[in-house]
Amino acid sequence: MIMNPAELRQLLRDVAAGAADTGDAERRILDVLRSTPYADLGFARVDHHRSIRQGFPEVVLGLGKTPAQIASISSEIARRGSTLLITRATPQAADAVRAELPHATYYPEAQIVALRQQDVAPGTGTILIVAAGTADLPVAEEAARSAELMGNSIERLYDVGVAGIHRLLSERARLDSARVLIVVAGMEGALPSVVSGLVAVPVIAVPTSVGYGASFGGLAALLGMLNSCASGVSVVNIDNGFGAASVASLINHLP
Amino acid sequence: MIMNPAELRQLLRDVAAGAADTGDAERRILDVLRSTPYADLGFARVDHHRSIRQGFPEVVLGLGKTPAQIASISSEIARRGSTLLITRATPQAADAVRAELPHATYYPEAQIVALRQQDVAPGTGTILIVAAGTADLPVAEEAARSAELMGNSIERLYDVGVAGIHRLLSERARLDSARVLIVVAGMEGALPSVVSGLVAVPVIAVPTSVGYGASFGGLAALLGMLNSCASGVSVVNIDNGFGAASVASLINHLP
Amino acid sequence: MIMNPAELRQLLRDVAAGAADTGDAERRILDVLRSTPYADLGFARVDHHRSIRQGFPEVVLGLGKTPAQIASISSEIARRGSTLLITRATPQAADAVRAELPHATYYPEAQIVALRQQDVAPGTGTILIVAAGTADLPVAEEAARSAELMGNSIERLYDVGVAGIHRLLSERARLDSARVLIVVAGMEGALPSVVSGLVAVPVIAVPTSVGYGASFGGLAALLGMLNSCASGVSVVNIDNGFGAASVASLINHLP
Amino acid sequence: MIMNPAELRQLLRDVAAGAADTGDAERRILDVLRSTPYADLGFARVDHHRSIRQGFPEVVLGLGKTPAQIASISSEIARRGSTLLITRATPQAADAVRAELPHATYYPEAQIVALRQQDVAPGTGTILIVAAGTADLPVAEEAARSAELMGNSIERLYDVGVAGIHRLLSERARLDSARVLIVVAGMEGALPSVVSGLVAVPVIAVPTSVGYGASFGGLAALLGMLNSCASGVSVVNIDNGFGAASVASLINHLP
Amino acid sequence: MIMNPAELRQLLRDVAAGAADTGDAERRILDVLRSTPYADLGFARVDHHRSIRQGFPEVVLGLGKTPAQIASISSEIARRGSTLLITRATPQAADAVRAELPHATYYPEAQIVALRQQDVAPGTGTILIVAAGTADLPVAEEAARSAELMGNSIERLYDVGVAGIHRLLSERARLDSARVLIVVAGMEGALPSVVSGLVAVPVIAVPTSVGYGASFGGLAALLGMLNSCASGVSVVNIDNGFGAASVASLINHLP
Amino acid sequence: MIMNPAELRQLLRDVAAGAADTGDAERRILDVLRSTPYADLGFARVDHHRSIRQGFPEVVLGLGKTPAQIASISSEIARRGSTLLITRATPQAADAVRAELPHATYYPEAQIVALRQQDVAPGTGTILIVAAGTADLPVAEEAARSAELMGNSIERLYDVGVAGIHRLLSERARLDSARVLIVVAGMEGALPSVVSGLVAVPVIAVPTSVGYGASFGGLAALLGMLNSCASGVSVVNIDNGFGAASVASLINHLP
Amino acid sequence: MIMNPAELRQLLRDVAAGAADTGDAERRILDVLRSTPYADLGFARVDHHRSIRQGFPEVVLGLGKTPAQIASISSEIARRGSTLLITRATPQAADAVRAELPHATYYPEAQIVALRQQDVAPGTGTILIVAAGTADLPVAEEAARSAELMGNSIERLYDVGVAGIHRLLSERARLDSARVLIVVAGMEGALPSVVSGLVAVPVIAVPTSVGYGASFGGLAALLGMLNSCASGVSVVNIDNGFGAASVASLINHLP
Amino acid sequence: MIMNPAELRQLLRDVAAGAADTGDAERRILDVLRSTPYADLGFARVDHHRSIRQGFPEVVLGLGKTPAQIASISSEIARRGSTLLITRATPQAADAVRAELPHATYYPEAQIVALRQQDVAPGTGTILIVAAGTADLPVAEEAARSAELMGNSIERLYDVGVAGIHRLLSERARLDSARVLIVVAGMEGALPSVVSGLVAVPVIAVPTSVGYGASFGGLAALLGMLNSCASGVSVVNIDNGFGAASVASLINHLP
Repeated sequence: MIMNPAELRQLLRDVAAGAADTGDAERRILDVLRSTPYADLGFARVDHHRSIRQGFPEVVLGLGKTPAQIASISSEIARRGSTLLITRATPQAADAVRAELPHATYYPEAQIVALRQQDVAPGTGTILIVAAGTADLPVAEEAARSAELMGNSIERLYDVGVAGIHRLLSERARLDSARVLIVVAGMEGALPSVVSGLVAVPVIAVPTSVGYGASFGGLAALLGMLNSCASGVSVVNIDNGFGAASVASLINHLP
Repeated sequence: MIMNPAELRQLLRDVAAGAADTGDAERRILDVLRSTPYADLGFARVDHHRSIRQGFPEVVLGLGKTPAQIASISSEIARRGSTLLITRATPQAADAVRAELPHATYYPEAQIVALRQQDVAPGTGTILIVAAGTADLPVAEEAARSAELMGNSIERLYDVGVAGIHRLLSERARLDSARVLIVVAGMEGALPSVVSGLVAVPVIAVPTSVGYGASFGGLAALLGMLNSCASGVSVVNIDNGFGAASVASLINHLP
Repeated sequence: MIMNPAELRQLLRDVAAGAADTGDAERRILDVLRSTPYADLGFARVDHHRSIRQGFPEVVLGLGKTPAQIASISSEIARRGSTLLITRATPQAADAVRAELPHATYYPEAQIVALRQQDVAPGTGTILIVAAGTADLPVAEEAARSAELMGNSIERLYDVGVAGIHRLLSERARLDSARVLIVVAGMEGALPSVVSGLVAVPVIAVPTSVGYGASFGGLAALLGMLNSCASGVSVVNIDNGFGAASVASLINHLP
Repeated sequence: MIMNPAELRQLLRDVAAGAADTGDAERRILDVLRSTPYADLGFARVDHHRSIRQGFPEVVLGLGKTPAQIASISSEIARRGSTLLITRATPQAADAVRAELPHATYYPEAQIVALRQQDVAPGTGTILIVAAGTADLPVAEEAARSAELMGNSIERLYDVGVAGIHRLLSERARLDSARVLIVVAGMEGALPSVVSGLVAVPVIAVPTSVGYGASFGGLAALLGMLNSCASGVSVVNIDNGFGAASVASLINHLP
Repeated sequence: MIMNPAELRQLLRDVAAGAADTGDAERRILDVLRSTPYADLGFARVDHHRSIRQGFPEVVLGLGKTPAQIASISSEIARRGSTLLITRATPQAADAVRAELPHATYYPEAQIVALRQQDVAPGTGTILIVAAGTADLPVAEEAARSAELMGNSIERLYDVGVAGIHRLLSERARLDSARVLIVVAGMEGALPSVVSGLVAVPVIAVPTSVGYGASFGGLAALLGMLNSCASGVSVVNIDNGFGAASVASLINHLP
Repeated sequence: MIMNPAELRQLLRDVAAGAADTGDAERRILDVLRSTPYADLGFARVDHHRSIRQGFPEVVLGLGKTPAQIASISSEIARRGSTLLITRATPQAADAVRAELPHATYYPEAQIVALRQQDVAPGTGTILIVAAGTADLPVAEEAARSAELMGNSIERLYDVGVAGIHRLLSERARLDSARVLIVVAGMEGALPSVVSGLVAVPVIAVPTSVGYGASFGGLAALLGMLNSCASGVSVVNIDNGFGAASVASLINHLP
Repeated sequence: MIMNPAELRQLLRDVAAGAADTGDAERRILDVLRSTPYADLGFARVDHHRSIRQGFPEVVLGLGKTPAQIASISSEIARRGSTLLITRATPQAADAVRAELPHATYYPEAQIVALRQQDVAPGTGTILIVAAGTADLPVAEEAARSAELMGNSIERLYDVGVAGIHRLLSERARLDSARVLIVVAGMEGALPSVVSGLVAVPVIAVPTSVGYGASFGGLAALLGMLNSCASGVSVVNIDNGFGAASVASLINHLP
Repeated sequence: MIMNPAELRQLLRDVAAGAADTGDAERRILDVLRSTPYADLGFARVDHHRSIRQGFPEVVLGLGKTPAQIASISSEIARRGSTLLITRATPQAADAVRAELPHATYYPEAQIVALRQQDVAPGTGTILIVAAGTADLPVAEEAARSAELMGNSIERLYDVGVAGIHRLLSERARLDSARVLIVVAGMEGALPSVVSGLVAVPVIAVPTSVGYGASFGGLAALLGMLNSCASGVSVVNIDNGFGAASVASLINHLP
């Protein structure tokens, strides 16, 4: 028995407006408080209060879990009415989940399985996902799909790497209209510095492992972004599109 | 001749309200547009449109510049009415600046020289600066002083490292009341993960070079923060208190 | 011909109590001393005095050995009455061993083959194996199965990572009841610091290669644990569940 | 108002034996529980319950703190009757502390300031500190002095590096008589592997930054120890003699 | 006895034009061929044929040499009529050289000692030295002074980092007018990628050690430049302004 | 509608010579200016002005793109009359491209797909590609094929590593006849230093990932080349034959 | 037409003894001098004077070459009467070679193809190959087979790692009887230090990539060996059994 | 009471020749065997049997020891009649030693203190020390002085780096006349590969920390030497001139 923040706010407003009975409200809230804050599946403890604490239910990282484990955790999440988001999901994991939750959707390019439910509050503005090159798309899509599922309006601006700076400069209107930007780049990872110099909102930089030789699996891009000469840039882990989305969504949900 | 975003907004509102003459408004805006966007000092180009583009004037990184160069750039900034912020300022640099700008203040622990002027818009909520240990204070203070100068209300919560988790847990009320958190930690850099699991707002993590042996100058803390198992954490460069402040301030100034 | 420490202790007590003949005792001890301390198989020297020196027979690391080599070494160990423990055993290696030793058991999640015999002394208290996430289970299980085979009572506490600290705090009773803890974590590896701050017994930290991007195959977790701000933490190699178990077992067997 | 574990145990035994009044006992325990668990000095929170949780009072890491900060924290600790241990103390820090606590002792080779009080329980056996070379002595002494202050009986075995293995082998009796060993080595860090193969008790390995060229500040020794082919070895941070002492002391205090 | 390429070319033209006697020409060439190709000073072998092979006399790297050694090598070079270029020259080294060669000039910002003689052929076009920030100037000046001494016309474009891209874009005419560009940048090292995307000539990228934290002494900038998404960029060592100048000069001297 | 630099130059000469009508010339240039500078394919923006800015059309890096994406981008490039160059093309990508562009050629050793059209200007001299060993041939061939397609005359000198220096020295005539050299080497990457000491033209060094053990995927060769004691060497990314070709071609096209 | 050093020595002795005609001797030597010092196969230059310069013919490194290339080079070597040694030979490469040279032998554990001919001089003493563990055998065998083919008498001492030092100490007679030792070890790579402390002859240390976690592909063992506290140890590349053999053989062939 | 190998050999020959009394010989040998194999100074154990085991007395590494400790160890060594060699000796250490041993000599460039006594056997041939550049001289001199003291005839060949290969090639006679070579180089460390390709004897390669930027304290040279494409090269630690000398001396003392 869980209750997401939007439901709680509505319930209290209903009580204030006389549209809900105080006894019923008390019981519903007590039910939530009385339920254990997580479900212990033996190999995993599903954190049912995550949404209360952080505004979005627990997200399942598919990496290193078996399809059966993923399916089992997913059922537990969905059964409580929570929106389901699985990242780094292989096709095998997606099949296992959809065998139990047929309404779940698999986005292969983003490697995401999603099942939207009624518990996510909408964000304020638009999150713009900017990607330097075509090869960065899987990471950009992980960010885009995650941010969308977290209740945000998103836009995409792809293949605007700094080697052809006019491609970026010709899109300044779109850059200016976003409330927060996620900038995805591999190789030298220079795009966030340039973008951040053009806008007055936060830029979440995502280095990707795209590159070869001395990119060392994304290390070059990561170091480039951490050393950005532009202020207003913060960085998440290599290829961590989901991480960028969760930061951007928190920002976009600030009142 | 520059104009900060708040001034522009006010001017247009005045025009709309009939409180300003359209001809005067046009002239003032044209003056700005006609002025060169930067001042070329030979060794430096002071970016006078930075405030228009990004909401805060150009900040001077003291590292690698001579006191004379810093003083010269600072005068150029201050002379246009812009708030002055110099980071990584040695006492020698501070002296050189204050010889020209006697009202500037030096904060030795933060290694910051500041001169506040009337061009900075206030932020919305509070930025809480959390530091793991006493040795992290210089970096935390760089963040605190910078954020303050950028127009934000700030609070400090120091020496709450994860080895004594009760020190942190007993301050949950203060954690919950911030709009954005800057979490500063050296050694293993675990504090942002724990803090981010407790709050529903963005956490900007700052690794510090505090530690020895295999901390490798802050690398351990940096990697720890980038690999945070908690969502909602983004990271800036090692010891980069200013960088964290600028991200947090952008977030805190979102309408 | 070998003799484990428990047997020797018993023999001497029997002699002291008159329950054993001194001549027989002398002969048995001499037999051991006269036997070569290792068996040379050409490609390997099986160390039959390991149990006398260190309290547990030689353990076979499956990595880099062929199934035939592993089976041959295993037979040599088992034939002397020693408990057999093979780590990093592939299914192929397990099959080769069980073709010769049908009573051996394969634990696929732990990648361990085991054959318990009567030569292992029981430990004093309980070893608690704590794991941060579901993906850390293979390493945690390698530790658990190894510790168990070494004569220890073990308990498991899984999926209590620091991002949801309440899951850990709600299990303080179990943390307090252990004589030594093995704490397994990937990503930023912060869990041992938090756990060690809560208990008054030694914590053996095991970094895992779970993570991606800048986890660099477990390097981030390893550095995090080595730089722990909590005292009482020592560290073994990445993914080395067995190594942690052997340290914990030595501690748990101290008189 | 604090109470160390030995005092608490004694108090309860007195109550059980009728030697203490239950009302007095209750009051004393309540006093402790009512006192704040830490003292907030602004720049530091002194953790007064550390001894209750972990058996030894909070230790002060001198690195990165000013002499004034160190002296202030030290006074707070000593004033409550807790044993004081400051590591990485410069002569300046030692002077500042002794200005306030004249009975404190400075051990320059170990870079430790210590003030023993009546709150530390004695350990069970002996901790043997083994050092590979003369240049490793500062780290070995940090371990030795720390372990001694934590209530342990210690012994030293110095300059027994593996290049002259007979120096080590001729000391097997001393190796065998210890309950736990701390093995300190720089360069290739091979000593813990050899020592651990000779004993049946836990070995805490401390890599030092002794070496040059490709020792990379102790990295070579650290990696060597983490990859030890001998079981029973766990590792602490480079040059972290104190860390090794705290692990060894916890082991040596196990009932 | 040496002969620079320009002298040889002139001599042969004179012979062809009847302006030189073939016997004299033969003798002069033979003299060169007979002279030893280097002068052995014991601690150094001055390579007097370097100019013949590579178009510029041997350059003295001051790093790791004593002032006396530098002065001695310099005298040997200058005495043969070769242009002298010493890089990484400390003031002490400069003093030692000028004690023997009073006409030599010291450029402190570039850490260069130079003595121009008549043996260097002029380049074809202009080498433009672009620097990202004020702190990169020492490296940029090492490049500028070196290139100038090698016979090239040079221009400077400083403080045009990517965080304020308009500063660079407003100088496109100067970018377009160069025959080869040297682009100097620290921190994330993104400037060469952006510049190379704007021009149709070779870009020599020089990473600098300017930065802090995860710049790791220029590693971040170096990796960024090596992974440039723009073609036409090649890279020299960190802070190696001279190296960039020598490559650029070779290009600018191509017929 | 695009126009390469050679066409523009010819057009203006025709106008000057009266061979072209000014009205027609104006229309052709305006057509180019009016066309969008890139084609947006959704997942990629094909930069049709690349040839105008940099003298060669956009090159397709096959890495990380699907065969379908590569084929689609290729068609867009070829349809405008631009020469097509795809690097890191798998056989699958080559098949997909040739299904749409049957005249394209696949060079498997170089992993290149090429379709030459009439838009590339010829270079001035010869580019010599030097390779240290047989295993470096794939990278050398990527450089050779790329340089050839960019309009350059090329020559090859393979398997002349420094371990048998006479193989290199016996080819000095070929070394001397090149206008620019590309030197490809793995392992210790010493060849560029030796070659550069023998010639008076620029050397572009390409480290390869050939080697094992401590070559760390080409890192050893890369560092070796960056630290070359010979001047005149600049470096591109590991295995980046194309990058070297593009630098060499820019040099070889300088007027 | 080549001549190995033994043949030359014999020829000159025959001349001195009147057993050979001076005219014939002159002709034979001139034939060698006149022949090209290498055979150019296009993709490779077979160095036929290697044996004259270095005492052993050119060795073929199989890594990165196709089976066809390897077979072609091998035929060229064998056809001149030179002993053939191919390292890192896959079974496919071995098959390709044996299709042309049926008398060649494949040693799969060592990954070596060999064809012994009459051109190799015998060494003086014995080379002892010592290996730490069973998993190091492939590298040890590469060393053993290579050394054997180079004309050396060899012995093997396997699985004598430092964790059970008695296995090594019981073989001191064999250690003492060798003229040079090759010591192969993975993990912490401590064995060469211990061995070198026991003998008075050179020790060639070979780190292997055996290990996991923080062995980082043999880096730990490599650093350990380079930092050996024992003198008399020099090191070759990770897994480079052949390299160790060639050094040991040169030593063992010194007169 | 010690006896060096030469004395022992002589004694036995005297006995065989009747020139020594067997009873006296027995007594002298027994005296040695009865004496403790090392002298325990508390902070150091001086290994007096080192000469017996390895042919040269224990060498004192000055690094990390106090002048007093060094002087004390030195006196102990010299007093037994052993040749004294101290490496990495600061002037302070040298003064302290010479206060006790006035006949000791300090070589400042090599940072060596030496006191030759009558206990060292002469080597067979010549050790040639080759250095790439003037800045490598301190390391080369450490090697030269050490090798000399160990009884070897040495020669020096300095400043013959690969950028001017003719300087090296003109010295082939000296290269050919050595029995073993020590090749010292910083920067890219290419010299050993080239040298080893020219000679038929072992090459001991010493990387130095000479260089800047991406030389990373000698890492570039170290990796270059480990990855040498020439066989016959083995490597010691960065700047370890002594280590190279001890390997070369062992080789040069082989009968």
